[in-house]
Amino acid sequence: MLYHLFKYLDQVYDFPGQELYQYLSFRSAVAVMLSLLISTIYGKKIINYLRRQQIGESIRDLGLEGQEEKAGTPTMGGIIIILATLVPVLLLANLTNIYVILLVVTTLWMGVIGFLDDYIKTFKKSKEGLKGRFKVVGQVGLGLIVGTTLFFHPEITIKENPVAPQNRSAVELVSSSEEVGVAQEERSTKTTIPFFKNNEFDYASLITWINPNWASHAWLVFIPIVIFIVTAVSNGANLTDGIDGLAAGSSAIIILALGLFAWVSGNIIFSDYLNVMYIPRSGEMTVFISSLAGALVGFLWYNTYPAQVFMGDTGSLTIGGIIAVLALAVRKELLIPILCGIFLIENLSVVMQVGWFKYTKRKYGEGRRIFRMSPLHHHFQKAGFHESKIVVRFWIIGIFLAIVSVVTLKLR
Amino acid sequence: MLYHLFKYLDQVYDFPGQELYQYLSFRSAVAVMLSLLISTIYGKKIINYLRRQQIGESIRDLGLEGQEEKAGTPTMGGIIIILATLVPVLLLANLTNIYVILLVVTTLWMGVIGFLDDYIKTFKKSKEGLKGRFKVVGQVGLGLIVGTTLFFHPEITIKENPVAPQNRSAVELVSSSEEVGVAQEERSTKTTIPFFKNNEFDYASLITWINPNWASHAWLVFIPIVIFIVTAVSNGANLTDGIDGLAAGSSAIIILALGLFAWVSGNIIFSDYLNVMYIPRSGEMTVFISSLAGALVGFLWYNTYPAQVFMGDTGSLTIGGIIAVLALAVRKELLIPILCGIFLIENLSVVMQVGWFKYTKRKYGEGRRIFRMSPLHHHFQKAGFHESKIVVRFWIIGIFLAIVSVVTLKLR
Repeated sequence: MLYHLFKYLDQVYDFPGQELYQYLSFRSAVAVMLSLLISTIYGKKIINYLRRQQIGESIRDLGLEGQEEKAGTPTMGGIIIILATLVPVLLLANLTNIYVILLVVTTLWMGVIGFLDDYIKTFKKSKEGLKGRFKVVGQVGLGLIVGTTLFFHPEITIKENPVAPQNRSAVELVSSSEEVGVAQEERSTKTTIPFFKNNEFDYASLITWINPNWASHAWLVFIPIVIFIVTAVSNGANLTDGIDGLAAGSSAIIILALGLFAWVSGNIIFSDYLNVMYIPRSGEMTVFISSLAGALVGFLWYNTYPAQVFMGDTGSLTIGGIIAVLALAVRKELLIPILCGIFLIENLSVVMQVGWFKYTKRKYGEGRRIFRMSPLHHHFQKAGFHESKIVVRFWIIGIFLAIVSVVTLKLR
Repeated sequence: MLYHLFKYLDQVYDFPGQELYQYLSFRSAVAVMLSLLISTIYGKKIINYLRRQQIGESIRDLGLEGQEEKAGTPTMGGIIIILATLVPVLLLANLTNIYVILLVVTTLWMGVIGFLDDYIKTFKKSKEGLKGRFKVVGQVGLGLIVGTTLFFHPEITIKENPVAPQNRSAVELVSSSEEVGVAQEERSTKTTIPFFKNNEFDYASLITWINPNWASHAWLVFIPIVIFIVTAVSNGANLTDGIDGLAAGSSAIIILALGLFAWVSGNIIFSDYLNVMYIPRSGEMTVFISSLAGALVGFLWYNTYPAQVFMGDTGSLTIGGIIAVLALAVRKELLIPILCGIFLIENLSVVMQVGWFKYTKRKYGEGRRIFRMSPLHHHFQKAGFHESKIVVRFWIIGIFLAIVSVVTLKLR
């Protein structure tokens, strides 16, 4: 709202420093500092409030050392993350930008779903939460909202082969305003294929090979794909949230990589220089991403080992949803298996463990296990690694995967 | 050396993908991945070797809980950091670049000083190490080398008000090669004053106010300043290295911020766009910085709580020296009190503690303390915070300070 205030003041009055509000990088930097301050300073108050309201999530009995110490630690800390993200966004972002609106809606929607889940778990003493069913409905609902918006909204476009100002002839420079490339904006279902140079994949091709005239029906394949991605990433983040600081730290790393993609994709000069798809207006997401990154790092102030608060589904489902939407918005969703590799292996470890157990039970009459315990982080805990060391090592792997993802920018 | 090999091959033959070696961002990305792999994979072997050679640094008895567990943990882990930094640099950097040469010399010089210190501590059982004296000689020596190079080397220059290609008229674009701005390169003792717009400080002015013709004698003030900065930062890093992962993580954060400065300062387009001093050839430091960042993060794989290795003076003195040189090279050394704020408060806590103790002892006959213990991280440990939590919180403060430092880029 400050953004809009300053924009208005700028149009009406003349005062020093007023041009600063226009700079995306400046607003993003202020956003990350603000969200860091909100989450660290107000975090304590929210934690004390949560502790008074709940006796703390009754911990699932895993037979792990030091587990009893954790009884009494309040959950629903995701509220801290959500507040520390939304306050700077509402103050500093352009709230008429479709990408910002989409991200705010995602945050609120998944925040409510996660909160209901945590609430039922904590106060109804039902460990099943929403029994998975309501959670899935929430995720599919979000997928529908996001898929429909990305497909049909007129302001969600790409520009193919835009020519950045410095590469155009002086004639063009004179005859056009700075921000307008020579290519036209167009709505598109194209996305980026990692590692391949100048290679893009068009979801519409999944349907146009049947009949070339069906391009306008491409939403029939696009929306289910979006639903799948949103559900998968959101569940992945949910499963990863098992030991102190793991989900918050891993997500912060993923978010930073996506922030780089958004900043570059939305800038006509940098996207041209780095040969990345130019997506008009997507740069504004950087303000949201900076806020979220700051909120996650600030949350770690209390969530790192030994944790004083857990994010709960309020946090993990929301973060997962946001990551999915961001990846789709910058058209880098095919990078998710690499960028969100931590979520993927956590997810796979559960699927493998459960699948193998059921298979061996049917075959040998006795269930066998691949890991000492799933998700994977508990396997290492059972193997005797200190919780704190497992978490930092997962972060390091996350950093490596984020770098690999960013490198695909350049290899293309 | 691969850089030079590919450059040679590029001149002689024509093969696909050969242009990649030219891209600074690509080489930097490969460097960080390589150093991460070296430090995590070979780190284990080096640790085992170190453990066999030494019984482990006999820990200073602080009366802290869990301290005994640390006996037997080998020190000199800085060797891992140095190797994981230098190998990618030797392979991927332009080794004729003066900044790269200066950084490699710094690493080797301080590495040897630190190693000697650790060696005497471990094997001579003399806890005084080089008794401070040799260490200071090493630091002053480095300051002399660095100050002299920065002042006198013909390739260390800045370009004032360069005009990036896209802002020049078509006539200029046609008549000049891409890399040459309209301004001339010049040797200079100018540096950046944080927070103030378009404000630079010239160290030569410290002497020319006496006599305007003395500008060529500016090294008389410049070199002592460099010696002071190198010594201060190197000691700061040294003091910060007290609990698991603190120095490595804090340094990685500082290094990343400096990497951003180097990348921007060395790129004529970006430095113009962001209004930062353009420093020709300084971008090549990004390869070194990426390697060091990767090495530090990889080192954390073993150094994070509970640590399997300590970096020792081999690590901390070297990292401190490199940070000082980097800050000087990108002419952002006046930002050090903010960017290296963690080092500063650790240092101040010791100075205050010792000073107050001596003062009160003289005055009241009995020494009094400000902190439960210094450096500051031990104060919090004595106050009952978990080592792991102190470290992550110091990192978070470091991230905040790094962002503040980067913001000064834009505020100017």
